[in-house]
Amino acid sequence: MNMLEQVKAYLLDLQDRICADLERADGQARFVEDAWTREGRLGGGGRTRVMNDGAVIEKGGVNFSHVQGDQLPPAATASRPELAGCSYHAMGVSLVIHPHNPYIPTSHANVRFFIAEKEGAEPIWWFGGGYDLTPYYPFEEDCIHWHETAKAAADPFGENVYDEHKRWCDEYFYLKHREETRGVGGLFFDDLNEWGFERSFAYMQAVGDSYTKAYVPIIEKRKDHEYGERQRDFQLYRRGRYVEFNLVFDRGTLFGLQSGGRTESILMSLPPLVKWGYNWQAEEGSEEARLNAFLSPRDWLKG
Amino acid sequence: MNMLEQVKAYLLDLQDRICADLERADGQARFVEDAWTREGRLGGGGRTRVMNDGAVIEKGGVNFSHVQGDQLPPAATASRPELAGCSYHAMGVSLVIHPHNPYIPTSHANVRFFIAEKEGAEPIWWFGGGYDLTPYYPFEEDCIHWHETAKAAADPFGENVYDEHKRWCDEYFYLKHREETRGVGGLFFDDLNEWGFERSFAYMQAVGDSYTKAYVPIIEKRKDHEYGERQRDFQLYRRGRYVEFNLVFDRGTLFGLQSGGRTESILMSLPPLVKWGYNWQAEEGSEEARLNAFLSPRDWLKG
Repeated sequence: MNMLEQVKAYLLDLQDRICADLERADGQARFVEDAWTREGRLGGGGRTRVMNDGAVIEKGGVNFSHVQGDQLPPAATASRPELAGCSYHAMGVSLVIHPHNPYIPTSHANVRFFIAEKEGAEPIWWFGGGYDLTPYYPFEEDCIHWHETAKAAADPFGENVYDEHKRWCDEYFYLKHREETRGVGGLFFDDLNEWGFERSFAYMQAVGDSYTKAYVPIIEKRKDHEYGERQRDFQLYRRGRYVEFNLVFDRGTLFGLQSGGRTESILMSLPPLVKWGYNWQAEEGSEEARLNAFLSPRDWLKG
Repeated sequence: MNMLEQVKAYLLDLQDRICADLERADGQARFVEDAWTREGRLGGGGRTRVMNDGAVIEKGGVNFSHVQGDQLPPAATASRPELAGCSYHAMGVSLVIHPHNPYIPTSHANVRFFIAEKEGAEPIWWFGGGYDLTPYYPFEEDCIHWHETAKAAADPFGENVYDEHKRWCDEYFYLKHREETRGVGGLFFDDLNEWGFERSFAYMQAVGDSYTKAYVPIIEKRKDHEYGERQRDFQLYRRGRYVEFNLVFDRGTLFGLQSGGRTESILMSLPPLVKWGYNWQAEEGSEEARLNAFLSPRDWLKG
């Protein structure tokens, strides 16, 4: 198999396994598949899988897509001008899970593979990926479990990999206009090819495979935690920040929209219900105000 | 008075008059003012005025702001590279009104004035502004009234002004990833200085002064129209498009966020409550499907 075929086989299987794990965790609803192909000059297609109104998951999407084009869009070449004008394949699994219960964090994961080609030059390929956790009412032990799982996945690839990709995640999932992180982070990497194909691919698999190990135990622990209108309200306001990040900053979202991707699959990441109120503030000393301390980078595994 | 002072005096008065007109139209709630100043190296301040949970208006904001900085941000210089590195003043009134009743459209208006200065060169100033209407359940007569009012404001400034600025509005308020306009448009102009200061300023005033004449009669006509959960639900989904436009495309929003503007004042434009559902579609032939025909440019005043 060539590189594209190997990665594609892994990603399709990963999507199946993640959906199965999340269906088990939900215990009630199933993912519904919407397979699509992109018509016209630019090829591509995908398997969008969506869950709505489960017992635990209010809205979740786990998407596989493989698109190709004759010119990389601006979001992909902003920091790599040498790629302008390249044709490309982009392939990945991307997911966002929005639970009903405000005590369960929202989570996101993505693994992706790109090849860019220009006539008369060797193809350039790279991997990217990661996952991050966005709690509303954070539990320190959940954050530690999340990061321990991430570290266990990264450690076989070098002693600094977790630290570097954890820092990258804190920097990437940052809302500049709010001066806060999207949540408590996790892992983020991009442009990975200096390890060579085998090792880079293996790392992407380690990240993809560890996502449900990081997330499902948190669902299990928090899904029966009682909540009321107050907690729901706070969750809806905080979901607004999720929308702001995805639409203003997220390179994956902007790449998708700019490359003529399938809008409904890309924006499946947006929460099912969201509030914005002018200058909404948590009361000082309240359970809601606790979150603020979790919205700047922290070293979860030391001390 | 110099240019800045003249424009500022007009804008503050405009904000007062618009708020008074909208309070009368609401009949119950009042705008609450939040005056702010920007600390630090970059000066500025504003009067944010917000209405919440009125009889008619679910959330509305009518903001005046005047900010200055030592370097124009990318959103302002993308199409004018000669302005890179200029210090600037930016001043305007910007408003968005989100009514409860899905039969009343959301509306937006903005008028603005910029001066950019570089040592050893004449200052460059320009005006911009406009307004646009976003119906959920459109009435043709409301769209025609809206455009007639816009045309009456523009006509004294030249016979093509309405046509050109109407077309500009259709082009500007366009969601490329949805292949639809934000609504039925209105007026949009930017970079206006070729008419000279007096006439440009007078046009900006004509636009600002005509906004409530365009909008309030529509509120009056539709505010008692009965609606139920179905109409509310459709409004919440359609509000998602409003968020997508403002966060992905709107230059005013991006300029504000990039220039270190006051986030809560800028994002007061976002709707109070919003839904996103995967691939939500109006049923063919339904009252909701009627909207689609209003989401591409149309010539409202002919035929």
